[in-house]
Amino acid sequence: MMPGSTRARATKPEPLTHQNGGTMNGTQFEGRRRVVIEGITPQVDGGRFPAKRTLGDQVRVEADIFTDGHDAIGAVLLARREGSSDWTEIPMHPLVNDRWTAAFRVGEMGRYGFKVQGWVDPFETWRRDLLKRIQAESDALVDYLIGADLVTKAAARASGADATWLHERASVLRAGKDAKKLRTHATDPMLHELIQRYPDKSVATESDQELSVVVDPVRARFSSWYEFFPRSTAQEPGKHGTFADCEKRLAYIAEMGFNVVYLPPIHPIGHTFRKGRNNVQEAQPGDCGSPWAIGSEEGGHKEIHHELGTIRDFQRFVAKARQLDMDVALDVAFQASPDHPYVREHPSWFRKRPDGTIQYAENPPKKYQDIYPFDFETEDWRGMWEEMKGVFLYWIGMGVTIFRVDNPHTKAFPFWEWVIAEIKRDHPEVFFLAEAFTRPKIMYRLAKIGFGQSYTYFPWRNGKEEIAAYLTELAQTPVREFFRPNQWTNTPDILTEFLQMGGRPAFVIRLLLAATLGANYGIYGPAFELLENRPIRHGSEEYLNSEKYEIRHWDLNRPESLRQLIAQVNEIRNSNPALQSDWSLKFHQTDNDQLLSYSKESEDRSNLILAVVNLDPHYTQAGHVTLPLDDLQIPHDRAYEAEDLLTGERYLWHGPRNYVELNPARISGHILKIHRRLKVETDFEYYL
Amino acid sequence: MMPGSTRARATKPEPLTHQNGGTMNGTQFEGRRRVVIEGITPQVDGGRFPAKRTLGDQVRVEADIFTDGHDAIGAVLLARREGSSDWTEIPMHPLVNDRWTAAFRVGEMGRYGFKVQGWVDPFETWRRDLLKRIQAESDALVDYLIGADLVTKAAARASGADATWLHERASVLRAGKDAKKLRTHATDPMLHELIQRYPDKSVATESDQELSVVVDPVRARFSSWYEFFPRSTAQEPGKHGTFADCEKRLAYIAEMGFNVVYLPPIHPIGHTFRKGRNNVQEAQPGDCGSPWAIGSEEGGHKEIHHELGTIRDFQRFVAKARQLDMDVALDVAFQASPDHPYVREHPSWFRKRPDGTIQYAENPPKKYQDIYPFDFETEDWRGMWEEMKGVFLYWIGMGVTIFRVDNPHTKAFPFWEWVIAEIKRDHPEVFFLAEAFTRPKIMYRLAKIGFGQSYTYFPWRNGKEEIAAYLTELAQTPVREFFRPNQWTNTPDILTEFLQMGGRPAFVIRLLLAATLGANYGIYGPAFELLENRPIRHGSEEYLNSEKYEIRHWDLNRPESLRQLIAQVNEIRNSNPALQSDWSLKFHQTDNDQLLSYSKESEDRSNLILAVVNLDPHYTQAGHVTLPLDDLQIPHDRAYEAEDLLTGERYLWHGPRNYVELNPARISGHILKIHRRLKVETDFEYYL
Repeated sequence: MMPGSTRARATKPEPLTHQNGGTMNGTQFEGRRRVVIEGITPQVDGGRFPAKRTLGDQVRVEADIFTDGHDAIGAVLLARREGSSDWTEIPMHPLVNDRWTAAFRVGEMGRYGFKVQGWVDPFETWRRDLLKRIQAESDALVDYLIGADLVTKAAARASGADATWLHERASVLRAGKDAKKLRTHATDPMLHELIQRYPDKSVATESDQELSVVVDPVRARFSSWYEFFPRSTAQEPGKHGTFADCEKRLAYIAEMGFNVVYLPPIHPIGHTFRKGRNNVQEAQPGDCGSPWAIGSEEGGHKEIHHELGTIRDFQRFVAKARQLDMDVALDVAFQASPDHPYVREHPSWFRKRPDGTIQYAENPPKKYQDIYPFDFETEDWRGMWEEMKGVFLYWIGMGVTIFRVDNPHTKAFPFWEWVIAEIKRDHPEVFFLAEAFTRPKIMYRLAKIGFGQSYTYFPWRNGKEEIAAYLTELAQTPVREFFRPNQWTNTPDILTEFLQMGGRPAFVIRLLLAATLGANYGIYGPAFELLENRPIRHGSEEYLNSEKYEIRHWDLNRPESLRQLIAQVNEIRNSNPALQSDWSLKFHQTDNDQLLSYSKESEDRSNLILAVVNLDPHYTQAGHVTLPLDDLQIPHDRAYEAEDLLTGERYLWHGPRNYVELNPARISGHILKIHRRLKVETDFEYYL
Repeated sequence: MMPGSTRARATKPEPLTHQNGGTMNGTQFEGRRRVVIEGITPQVDGGRFPAKRTLGDQVRVEADIFTDGHDAIGAVLLARREGSSDWTEIPMHPLVNDRWTAAFRVGEMGRYGFKVQGWVDPFETWRRDLLKRIQAESDALVDYLIGADLVTKAAARASGADATWLHERASVLRAGKDAKKLRTHATDPMLHELIQRYPDKSVATESDQELSVVVDPVRARFSSWYEFFPRSTAQEPGKHGTFADCEKRLAYIAEMGFNVVYLPPIHPIGHTFRKGRNNVQEAQPGDCGSPWAIGSEEGGHKEIHHELGTIRDFQRFVAKARQLDMDVALDVAFQASPDHPYVREHPSWFRKRPDGTIQYAENPPKKYQDIYPFDFETEDWRGMWEEMKGVFLYWIGMGVTIFRVDNPHTKAFPFWEWVIAEIKRDHPEVFFLAEAFTRPKIMYRLAKIGFGQSYTYFPWRNGKEEIAAYLTELAQTPVREFFRPNQWTNTPDILTEFLQMGGRPAFVIRLLLAATLGANYGIYGPAFELLENRPIRHGSEEYLNSEKYEIRHWDLNRPESLRQLIAQVNEIRNSNPALQSDWSLKFHQTDNDQLLSYSKESEDRSNLILAVVNLDPHYTQAGHVTLPLDDLQIPHDRAYEAEDLLTGERYLWHGPRNYVELNPARISGHILKIHRRLKVETDFEYYL
């Protein structure tokens, strides 16, 4: 399926209120559609893109619905699997200010469509007015005749026993003379209920277009990622790791509680212009090269680097991960080393220079001669797109369900919109993480066109105000309809200055923040848990002796390792639904600029987690946290318990303002489970 | 033209990026449109409605425009009179954060369309990179060969002398060997400029739809309304006023500086169930009835009540107003008295009850038996719509250019959208004021579907915070693209409690607020200028002895009249462009809750008006006003002058914080013209 077909994007059909336009005297235009439907949510860019949800969610839809004058109205939400003709109809209910709502549950992955219908409801108008008239004792026989006519019309729309019952009731209303009896018959709740089933939709208004929702697996909303280099997993220092080694590593990762293992590219690595250790221009013999310089005479994007093992080994690795309830995420970097078979087989996919050479990657005056970018303006873009789609399908066939896409912002947007829709049509369980650390509009666009998760600016947000502002934008604005953040502490490209300078507490702080601010978060290990913090040089975010250019051997059992703390944090995430979604995130006031406080709740509000983090990696910080008790549904008149899930300590708190003190030498944050109601004397039997 | 045709509403064509959908192997879909265009402003409800502007405005368009990777891009704004095939192309320029802008001027009334195009610009990319390479002395011959190819391609798109010149330059770049000369030829500004004229738009992206702007007369943005009852204009008490009397009244109104005179309905008034003075159920013989009970055996909406005069008299009145540069606004109330000819001629336009009677207006248990509402669900809605359109056209034929529409929210929305588009297609100089004091979404909808001005909640906003919040919503949010407020001090239906209780200062306060907060404002006189403030009863906003039900005789020369102050305020409005638009409105901090301060500026920023109003009608209030000097472009290091345009007093102010004191016994507000630069010693010649 190509973009442009109804499934790949939202169309904007003619609004029903102006159906088919044309002259007024034509038969098509209907001027009596008096109900207005506006401002439907969720809606991304006027329906151009689907909103994102995960399996099992209730999709809450809201709309402004009203009509002229004072007539009562009715409205329904209509939802379906996209393309199905089987609509589910859910009655909508008014909130305030002409806003109506209803929800539908998405029980399958893939796309759903929804729309809204509204109509003027003359029976309800009549009933409401009659009740007022009865109240004022100003009801007259004619009022019941009017009602009888409305009931007769409803009877004509009904069938079977309902129709019979309504016809009878209409007769009673029409013939009745006794005011008291008429009142009883007219206001009978049974009549009301029955008529509700048969609204007159002949001049109902339907929303301008079918809006859509894409339903991803739950792991698109809640995931804990662990990135590692397969080649650095050998037991023996200096040896090239294999998938067999990786298999052994899985237990270690699973014990820490991660559920996604993400591997940098596993393909053959080019030789031409290969980079040496620490990214030096000339590789030395034996240097293993960067896995992102994809392709050699061994093959390209569908091949496995021979030192890692075979495709069978890889499949066994994936199966083993699955046994541990972990998904494998693969890095897809659409670029080629000069040795990639594509360069020979599809020269037109690369830009040729007038001297006959192929254009390598450049950021003038810097040259990256080991990398050929694909030319998305090639005449053969169709062939290239199909081949790239094939790369995803190949690895899906090998058991991969998540793709971390390298620099998607340097490839054409229409390609991503097409390929993600194509893949997800047949594999709705697959999702894509966009690795685009670039300008905000571009990052958001990638999310709109299909990426199910996105890297963020989180690594560089260290101050209280900037963390709160950015995370609030992500969790509390319409951005959340399409952009799912994945908060990383570090990556092979990003060793932040905060981590470089803050010692072990800096790692603890960033772990606590990432894992509690982000329902999706990730670390790059073992560098992270082993507190690796040496940059290649002052002012750089590159690791010294980066695994990007050499094989490392890690001593996982070093005593300073954070693996225990990580395991504890992931266990807290797994057992507290509040931490498995970002939409409830709220920041709270503290009177110390180094103390950041925020809460998350489960959708049913039964699970409330309050985090307080000391952002200062050097000194103890103390102060008061002020909570909005009403918002958090904490009683004002009772103490409540704040149970620290990291230390097991329990605090008895009273009222909105409570004292905290955090010493980085001990632990830089609280993850507090709030127990809203503590027992008081009157709760116990002996009090009675 | 009916709604549904391309002119009455915005269509949402297929996005060009996915043009014509279809299979990838078809010829239609183009995957190489790499530029993304998003978030275009102005845009109302995703392009469903036009944005509003007035004659001569610069329409500033902005859009997010970007592409993948690091290539340079180009973009243009395309604008045209709607329906014309003559597009004007204006280059767009980048602001920050991938936002681009350009503006087009609307020199005619009516509708304009606009769209945005963007494309990847390989020449600019090459030129930018070449400059970096030259800087780093890393430019090579191949770079110039690449440039030569790009210049050759541009030459192919050019013609005449330009083509020749470009071909020659391409040859030079291709053949050159001397680095210095090549650099000069490649970076020649002439080459750059010439190539800019011939961008390669073969895979350009065009915005998803043509957006539209409706251009109204200037008076839709800047108007001063005076409402009065024609029948209350006779020289002699107790006599019915005529259009001849009204003509005499015009000079009085013009002297006060108004530019719109608005008349309640001037049609024959029904007899059946006529209301008496002070809205009593039974009229007494001789009671004149309410002008809103339209229609009698004399005629209906196209007829003039005989006691007012003839249609000729009315035309003379309109002509006289025009001589004084005033427009006449007519009240259009689509409802009928039981005696209206429509009731006989078009019984199907009214709802019949089962007892054969016609449904009168009701708000149960209240009955308004003197009024029959039209039934917008009538089978003959087409005939009724055409007749109503005819009413507008009839009065346009008599010289009316503005219609104040009574209770538009009790008539079907599709009707208004249709009729306003119909009228404005041939009469773009006409506009409509929506008299809908109802729920916010409904008021905004009416504005979206075509009303050029709207009544507001202003009469009931008296506190500092609520005024600032509401007016900021109207002037500083996207609401302003479609909703033009008209701020009224009072109307025949609205004598606010603030006016009832606050004495003369209350009238002064409301006048100053309305006239300076609202570029469009109005008063209902002579009740307003003569300080009429007695309600029919405590707790009601109805006037005692309301002109709605009786003829009043006003002594215009009473010494307490506000006519002088009103004249002064209107003169200030007329001579200060800052007060002729609402979009620059900003509220400023004061340290007294009774002092409201705000400023407005002309678009060129040369005219800056600061208002300070004491909201307390009883007591002197004093405090400090704090101005954001940088925002207002007032130098920090010099004094500036605040010239009170009401009193002529001049204040020398320094810095952001200055003292004000306002005594309601004198005048409740300052209207200060800010002179930003005062001369200091170094400005004078003798200093030198």
